[in-house]
Amino acid sequence: MEANHMYIGIDLGGTNIAGGLVDDSGTLLFNYSMPTEAAKGYQHVLEGIANVMATLKQEATNRQGVILGVGIGVPGLADDFSGVVYECVNLLWKSPVTLRADLKELTGYDVHIGNDASVAAVAEFRVGALRQVRNGVLVTLGTGVGGGLIVNGQPFSGSHGVGSEIGHMVVAPGEYRCNCGRMGCLETYASATALIKLSQMALQSGEVSEYFIEKGIESERIEAKDVIEGAKANDPFCLRIFNTMVTHLTIGLINLVTVIDPEIVVLGGGVSKAGHFLIEALEIALEKERIFRAAPKFEIKIAEAGNDAGIIGAAMLCKN
Amino acid sequence: MEANHMYIGIDLGGTNIAGGLVDDSGTLLFNYSMPTEAAKGYQHVLEGIANVMATLKQEATNRQGVILGVGIGVPGLADDFSGVVYECVNLLWKSPVTLRADLKELTGYDVHIGNDASVAAVAEFRVGALRQVRNGVLVTLGTGVGGGLIVNGQPFSGSHGVGSEIGHMVVAPGEYRCNCGRMGCLETYASATALIKLSQMALQSGEVSEYFIEKGIESERIEAKDVIEGAKANDPFCLRIFNTMVTHLTIGLINLVTVIDPEIVVLGGGVSKAGHFLIEALEIALEKERIFRAAPKFEIKIAEAGNDAGIIGAAMLCKN
Repeated sequence: MEANHMYIGIDLGGTNIAGGLVDDSGTLLFNYSMPTEAAKGYQHVLEGIANVMATLKQEATNRQGVILGVGIGVPGLADDFSGVVYECVNLLWKSPVTLRADLKELTGYDVHIGNDASVAAVAEFRVGALRQVRNGVLVTLGTGVGGGLIVNGQPFSGSHGVGSEIGHMVVAPGEYRCNCGRMGCLETYASATALIKLSQMALQSGEVSEYFIEKGIESERIEAKDVIEGAKANDPFCLRIFNTMVTHLTIGLINLVTVIDPEIVVLGGGVSKAGHFLIEALEIALEKERIFRAAPKFEIKIAEAGNDAGIIGAAMLCKN
Repeated sequence: MEANHMYIGIDLGGTNIAGGLVDDSGTLLFNYSMPTEAAKGYQHVLEGIANVMATLKQEATNRQGVILGVGIGVPGLADDFSGVVYECVNLLWKSPVTLRADLKELTGYDVHIGNDASVAAVAEFRVGALRQVRNGVLVTLGTGVGGGLIVNGQPFSGSHGVGSEIGHMVVAPGEYRCNCGRMGCLETYASATALIKLSQMALQSGEVSEYFIEKGIESERIEAKDVIEGAKANDPFCLRIFNTMVTHLTIGLINLVTVIDPEIVVLGGGVSKAGHFLIEALEIALEKERIFRAAPKFEIKIAEAGNDAGIIGAAMLCKN
């Protein structure tokens, strides 16, 4: 019987080390997770990853599978060229760690590594909305704003893994200070956090949302989806916050497209659940700002790779 | 006797079709130019390119050379993948032209095409300040602001040749309207034109430059180098204009680096003649805004490829 080709994908998060066996077509066959326990230190996390890999390898053997590669998505600056993670605040790694070399010593495997948003873009590229694209971008609108790039048909994250940090593009003088310390980052306009914070700032300055009053939503309990639902319901307050996001996300997309010039931009993360309401607003705003009218437009889509994108994308880092 | 490998490079400008024979190492061996006469139409320009190619081919034969490829730099949106120039305002091409296909028919050669700033980046990559770089950027600070990208060790200009238009990144609400129609483009802060225009606007609003008075420089005759020299001479007016440029060029570089994450950023064009004065000001401004302190910094350099960069870079488009 011929052995089946399999890949190990690991989504290394602040809470769990979520691993899976993925086949050639990007289908998740089996998954296995352990708590990350980042507070116990780098060595402990390394051993956790090795344990997850061992379990998955055993499962692959049970299935007559052969592991062709191991990929790991990291919530920080991960450079697959050097195998170094430069920084990873969520895991408390404040100085560079030689993740590939250390895992090679511990497990014998040469792993691929990537930023988690880059990995999510790889999942979109293999099984989602960026399939067959030559140049494409995933923008994740979640707690923060991240991004992943497909360039010349390959995942790309720059020379030091910084190429996913598009949430820290500066798009305006700024309303409040970003976690990174700068003013005006895209993340302070287009994340779920921004929708909440901009709403709270507006309420605090005396503005009123009829929608929030009607729904009994208090300032300290606002969620991003409340703002989106309010905007869909035509509440002027929520519409203004939503439009502030759209205006600045439009600038972010313009700046991104001016560099990467993709065929498709995919929106992921919680805010992207606004779906066509968001896409339509962006398309109208982008059309107004469009300058290269003879060149084809890029398409905006909502992410398709689903909840296992972190594992599938990590596994697919190995497939070139 | 063994034939020498040669490439034809053509720098297609608004004034001249400047061509040259370039060897494997990127050395210009011979050059030959003709007027572009863009007003006579696309077909006339095509024939001009074919004539320049014929002369260079003859010269190559005289030198026992073999032409391995032909590359053309175009002052517009040029997509080397499809061979289409989407738009080229300088040459009055307002709708897409199939430049590769048309030249193939006329000359028998399959040419490579690229935006002129992309081509200049290729010259830096082969014989200038981006040699050996994995990811690098050329930013040209001239009449406008353009850019060229080296990504994964290859020239990159996106899916439709727009990936060089970094002068149209939006970096601020804006002081005056860009040629493209938008407000806040990097080009309206960091081009030679911007230094002049921002100076004239400040003078018109009643500000005074002691340096301009001393040197007898009148508002309508200001050149970018006057502003730079004034800033170097510590004139408060010129320093303020220069610093406005530096502040916004810093935002532009931050945004670029957040996507491309290069090892080296090269500055070209007239404004880059400010040299170390400009580099030092940018390094100080960038250091203040630096957020990924564990990752290596990118280096800023001045372009090195010289006056023939347009021809050499175009020729080197053929060399992968």
